[in-house]
Amino acid sequence: MPQPNAPHRRAARLSAHLIPRFCGGERGGCGCNTPRRQRLAPHICRNDPATGYNWRDVHADLEAGVYAGCYGWDHAAYWGIAEAKAGVDLKEWYKTRTEAEFYLPEFKELIDDPATHKDWDRISTFDPLGMTAHPPTIAACKAKLDIPELKDLHMDGEIVLPSNEIVTSKCAISYAWNIPLMADRVGLSEQELREALHKFSYDSRLLDPKVKTYLPAVGGLTIYTFGDARKLKDERTEVCVRVHDECIGSDVFGSDICSCRPYLIFALREAVECAQRGGVGVVIYFRKEGRSLGEVIKFRVYNARVNQDGGDRPEMYFHHTEAIAGIRDARFQTMMPDALNWMGIRRIDLLCSMSNEKYEAITGAGIQVMKRVDLPDDYIKDSMRVELDAKIASGYHSDKVEETSS
Amino acid sequence: MPQPNAPHRRAARLSAHLIPRFCGGERGGCGCNTPRRQRLAPHICRNDPATGYNWRDVHADLEAGVYAGCYGWDHAAYWGIAEAKAGVDLKEWYKTRTEAEFYLPEFKELIDDPATHKDWDRISTFDPLGMTAHPPTIAACKAKLDIPELKDLHMDGEIVLPSNEIVTSKCAISYAWNIPLMADRVGLSEQELREALHKFSYDSRLLDPKVKTYLPAVGGLTIYTFGDARKLKDERTEVCVRVHDECIGSDVFGSDICSCRPYLIFALREAVECAQRGGVGVVIYFRKEGRSLGEVIKFRVYNARVNQDGGDRPEMYFHHTEAIAGIRDARFQTMMPDALNWMGIRRIDLLCSMSNEKYEAITGAGIQVMKRVDLPDDYIKDSMRVELDAKIASGYHSDKVEETSS
Repeated sequence: MPQPNAPHRRAARLSAHLIPRFCGGERGGCGCNTPRRQRLAPHICRNDPATGYNWRDVHADLEAGVYAGCYGWDHAAYWGIAEAKAGVDLKEWYKTRTEAEFYLPEFKELIDDPATHKDWDRISTFDPLGMTAHPPTIAACKAKLDIPELKDLHMDGEIVLPSNEIVTSKCAISYAWNIPLMADRVGLSEQELREALHKFSYDSRLLDPKVKTYLPAVGGLTIYTFGDARKLKDERTEVCVRVHDECIGSDVFGSDICSCRPYLIFALREAVECAQRGGVGVVIYFRKEGRSLGEVIKFRVYNARVNQDGGDRPEMYFHHTEAIAGIRDARFQTMMPDALNWMGIRRIDLLCSMSNEKYEAITGAGIQVMKRVDLPDDYIKDSMRVELDAKIASGYHSDKVEETSS
Repeated sequence: MPQPNAPHRRAARLSAHLIPRFCGGERGGCGCNTPRRQRLAPHICRNDPATGYNWRDVHADLEAGVYAGCYGWDHAAYWGIAEAKAGVDLKEWYKTRTEAEFYLPEFKELIDDPATHKDWDRISTFDPLGMTAHPPTIAACKAKLDIPELKDLHMDGEIVLPSNEIVTSKCAISYAWNIPLMADRVGLSEQELREALHKFSYDSRLLDPKVKTYLPAVGGLTIYTFGDARKLKDERTEVCVRVHDECIGSDVFGSDICSCRPYLIFALREAVECAQRGGVGVVIYFRKEGRSLGEVIKFRVYNARVNQDGGDRPEMYFHHTEAIAGIRDARFQTMMPDALNWMGIRRIDLLCSMSNEKYEAITGAGIQVMKRVDLPDDYIKDSMRVELDAKIASGYHSDKVEETSS
C-alpha cells in the first residue's frame, strides 16, 4: 500500500527542486527544465570551455581502452552473460573489424570532410570518429521505410519509391561521454558530475581524474536522413530537422495521451518533402523514454493525472511528474545538439519542435534556427491537449502564444 | 579504417562460439541461440531449483535497500545528473509514494489473487509485488491506442471504440534480477554469473554473496492486455499472446529489412480479436533492441549482408551477426516467460511467434501452447525474406516446414 507523506516534507522537496542550483536565466540550454518564469539564478552554461580534453582525446582513449563504463551500454549486462556462455572475450572482439565492414559513402564522405569538423570541439557525448574506430560506436546503413500514415507522399522515384517506400540513410550512435566537457554542458563541476555518475553506477573509475571518457549504460540515438547527407556541406542546402525523444507508448503503439507519434510522423513528412525540394531532412531519435524517467514513473504519473480530484488538467501536469519522480525531466537537451554539430549543420530552416529547451540547446550550440514549426492542429486529438497546453504554459513555443524567431 | 583479421584467428573464434559451453539438447530454453542441429552438449537448464532465495526474498531485499545495481536502470546515469542538479536524494524519494498513487484494479486484483501466484517461484527477473513496493518497479495504467494499420477492426464499443481506438491496460516492469535463480535460468553457475555481470558493470557488490538481487542497467518490458486481465484467473478463458522484442527501425520507422512491425501489428490484431471473442489478448514488448546487441552492431550486420559477394542470402544471415558481434544473440529467452508466469497464464491458445527459442522457453516455464501462429504471407515483403528464411532454416517454427504441436 502507498505510504502517505507528511505534506510539509513533500512540499519542502518540491520547492527544493523548483530552484535548481545551477540553472536559470533566459535560456534553458543547460538542461534545466524549470519554466523560465521560475528561473532565479544567473545562467552559467558555456558551450566550449577550455577543458583541454576534446573529441580527439576521447577517440584516442577509446582506441587505447582508457575509459569508465562498459562497451555494451544499456545491453552490457546481457553481453556479459552472452560472453560467459559463448567463451568469447567480447572486449577483444570489438577491437577488430571483419572483412565485411562497409561504410555508407554519404556519411563517410560527409564526416571525413574537414569542413564538417568546424564545430566538433563542442561534441561532448560521443566519438565523432566512431564509425571507423576500435571499438566502433557509430554505424550507418541504408533502409527503405514503410510508414502507414505517409502513403500519400509524392512518389518521385528517388526519395519516395513507386512502392510508396521512403529511402533513408540512417546512423546509430552510442555514447562516449567527455566527462570534463559534459560537466560544463549540464552545469555541474567535473567533480560533481563524477560523483553523480559514480553514485548511480558504482563504477569507481569515474572517480579517477585520469579517466575522462565514460560509456554510460544508456541508450544512444539514431539519425535518419532524407536526401543526400553530403549536401549538408553546402550552406545553401535547405535543412529540416526534428530531434525526437523516444516514447514507445505513442511511437509504436499509438497511445492517445501524448502527441509523440503524431509529431514524429508530421516531421518525417516535412523532412521527406524538404528532401524532395532538393534539401536534406534529418530526424533524430533519442533513447530517452519518458523524459529519461522511464515507463514505470510515466504510468504512475498518468494515473495521478487521470484520477486526481477535478480530473486531468494542464496546471497539474508537471506537478505530478515532479511529485512522483522528484524531478521534472532527466533529458538534458544541451547534450542533444552534438549530433547536429557532428553533421556540420549550422543552420536549420525548419525545426519541427515546440520545445524551448530543444530550441535553446540548438541555438546555444551555434546553430541558427530560421523557423520553428508547431504540430498542426489536425494532428492533435483532444486527449493530447492537457500535455500540449501544459508544455505551452511552461514555456514551450507555440505560434499561438509568441512570434517565431531565430 | 577497418583492421583485416587473420582468417584463422576469426575462424577459431567463430568455432569457439558455435559450441557454447552450457547449452544444447533438443530444447533451446536456456537461451542458447545455436541452431539445434549444432547443439552437442546435454541440456542442463532447470526452471525451479532449490536456491532457497525466491521472489519473496527479492521483494524484501528491495524494500530493505539490499541490492546491487542502481534504481534507474538504463536511465540511471541521467538520474544521477538530475539528482545533483535538483538537490534531491532520489534514492530516498523513491521509497515514498504520493497521495495521488492509483492502482489499476484489473491488474491489482489479478496479482493480489493467491491463485495467480502458483508459478511465481519461477520468476527470476523482477519483483512480482513491485507495483505497490518501495521502490516501485511495476506500474499499470489504461490507454487508448490509435494504430493506422488496424482501422478495419470491428468496433464493438468496448475493446474497439467508435473512434477506432483500441482500449488497453498496460503494465511497465523494471527488472530486479534474482542472481541465484537467474544463474540457473541462463545456464551459468552463480559465481560465473556474478563475475560476468561484474565484468560488464564494475559494480563490486555483485561479488558479495550476501547481495542476491541486482537492478541491471537494461530496459525492462511493457505488457499490453486487451479484454479484462482478471479473466486470466479462469482457465477456460481463451488467451492469445505475442512476446515481441524491440526493433525501433521497424516498430517505429517501418524499415523494410525485417518483419518486426508487421508481426507486432498482426499480433495486436489477433490479440484484439481474441478479446472480442471474450478472451484476453496479451502483447509484451521487451526492450532488447537488435537481439540485445544494439543498433550499431545491427547496422554493421546489415551492411555486411547487403554488400557481401553474391548478395544478401539466408545461409549467411547468422554468420555475419556472429562474425561482427562475436555472439549470435544476447536475449536469453528463458528470462522472458516470467511476465507470463506473473499473470498466472498456464495455457496459451494462440502464440503469435515463429521463434523456437521463445516457444521452448514458454513451454519450459510450464505454460502449455495450443497453437503457434506464423506471420501470414500477406504481411511479408520480399525484402524480409532473407531474415525469415534464415530463421526458419536455423530452427524457427513454420507451418511450411513442420506440424504445429503443443
